[in-house]
Amino acid sequence: MRLGIFLFDGLTLLDAIGGYEVLARLPGMETVFFAEEEGLIAADTRALGLTATASLENIGSLDILYIPGGPGVDRVLNKPHVLDVLRRLDEGTTWTVGICNGVGILAAAGMLDGQSATTNYFYRDDLAKYGVDVVPERYHRSGKYVTGAGVSASIDTGLYLAGEIGGEMAGKTLQLGIEYYPSPPYQETTPEEAPDRSKALVKAVEGMSAQILAQEPGFAGRSFEWKPPA
Amino acid sequence: MRLGIFLFDGLTLLDAIGGYEVLARLPGMETVFFAEEEGLIAADTRALGLTATASLENIGSLDILYIPGGPGVDRVLNKPHVLDVLRRLDEGTTWTVGICNGVGILAAAGMLDGQSATTNYFYRDDLAKYGVDVVPERYHRSGKYVTGAGVSASIDTGLYLAGEIGGEMAGKTLQLGIEYYPSPPYQETTPEEAPDRSKALVKAVEGMSAQILAQEPGFAGRSFEWKPPA
Repeated sequence: MRLGIFLFDGLTLLDAIGGYEVLARLPGMETVFFAEEEGLIAADTRALGLTATASLENIGSLDILYIPGGPGVDRVLNKPHVLDVLRRLDEGTTWTVGICNGVGILAAAGMLDGQSATTNYFYRDDLAKYGVDVVPERYHRSGKYVTGAGVSASIDTGLYLAGEIGGEMAGKTLQLGIEYYPSPPYQETTPEEAPDRSKALVKAVEGMSAQILAQEPGFAGRSFEWKPPA
Repeated sequence: MRLGIFLFDGLTLLDAIGGYEVLARLPGMETVFFAEEEGLIAADTRALGLTATASLENIGSLDILYIPGGPGVDRVLNKPHVLDVLRRLDEGTTWTVGICNGVGILAAAGMLDGQSATTNYFYRDDLAKYGVDVVPERYHRSGKYVTGAGVSASIDTGLYLAGEIGGEMAGKTLQLGIEYYPSPPYQETTPEEAPDRSKALVKAVEGMSAQILAQEPGFAGRSFEWKPPA
């Protein structure tokens, strides 16, 4: 199978890496990170760049299309040509995955018409505006669409999908491989239970992230060059 | 504070990204990914490259030294000059973090003499050979040394340390920010409970990973170039 993970300026990296770390290890999986153009992509923190080795133009067909979230999603939503290519890729997939507010990209591209989906705790109302039936779950399947809640939910979502593709033993083996037996240091078990002050702070930081990205396109002003394979 | 995350050829990316996604978001944190040399570093899957913007030579001093694991650890252990620089960096830190078999790098560099530590389920015996008191915990603190179990334990470890640095409200806010309210699709809660077949498979794959890395240094034979900031 061929897994394509879509990268864009200002993504939240754990949205992508949680699912990648599981799905890329399924036997026979070919994994490609792609973006609007080949080259280095800056994560939302501006502290990390990672490589897209394929572009929207040359990505070819995918069995699994995987779209993470992050503050950069808003800019992707304003690029109709990107949404067009993603929709065309989705037409050929066996599975399409959206994580966090990246689920908004699926919705904006028209993939989720008549479907249900989960998303980031803070993005539920935004997603509902697309007419999607929003469910407050950690991960959720609706037909071939598998969606995950915020950021770290990419791991649970990836494990669920790995189990659907490879069976329970594959899922449990990958769970052991990444040692996903979580034990968070705090007692809250859902975002609803988080302190009100934390909710206010996260909302404030999300606004600031959007501003930082607006002022500073690219990777903290640094220059990168990528040479494709000879 | 200044957080330095050490990258090396063949790291397991979630080991680094779980902690990064939390610690890099602490207010006032400056985060730098560094490696033996500046440039692009290939993860163990050979499907992803990410950027080291500083080298061992120019990284400067760090408040937090963070060392992930992966099949590439074995090669790092055979580089005394790398261990020397990491040990020197550790002498100036407030906290030093090791994840998965990356804890072996701390031990080999002499940082864990007289300390206790956790590590990957499959690496406990290897770590004990360095004389470290190995504890089978998700994350563990011994003095300034904070260690995590395998791969995804980087998240729990990062949240714990974020709480130690910024207090409980900061920890809970970061937990909400990355929506870490896990709900794995399988019922096992420790690596001990994983099916025997999964344990055998993971051990087999670890051997294969080492072989792949030995045959194929670099990023799947691809050529990368990084231009430092002007």
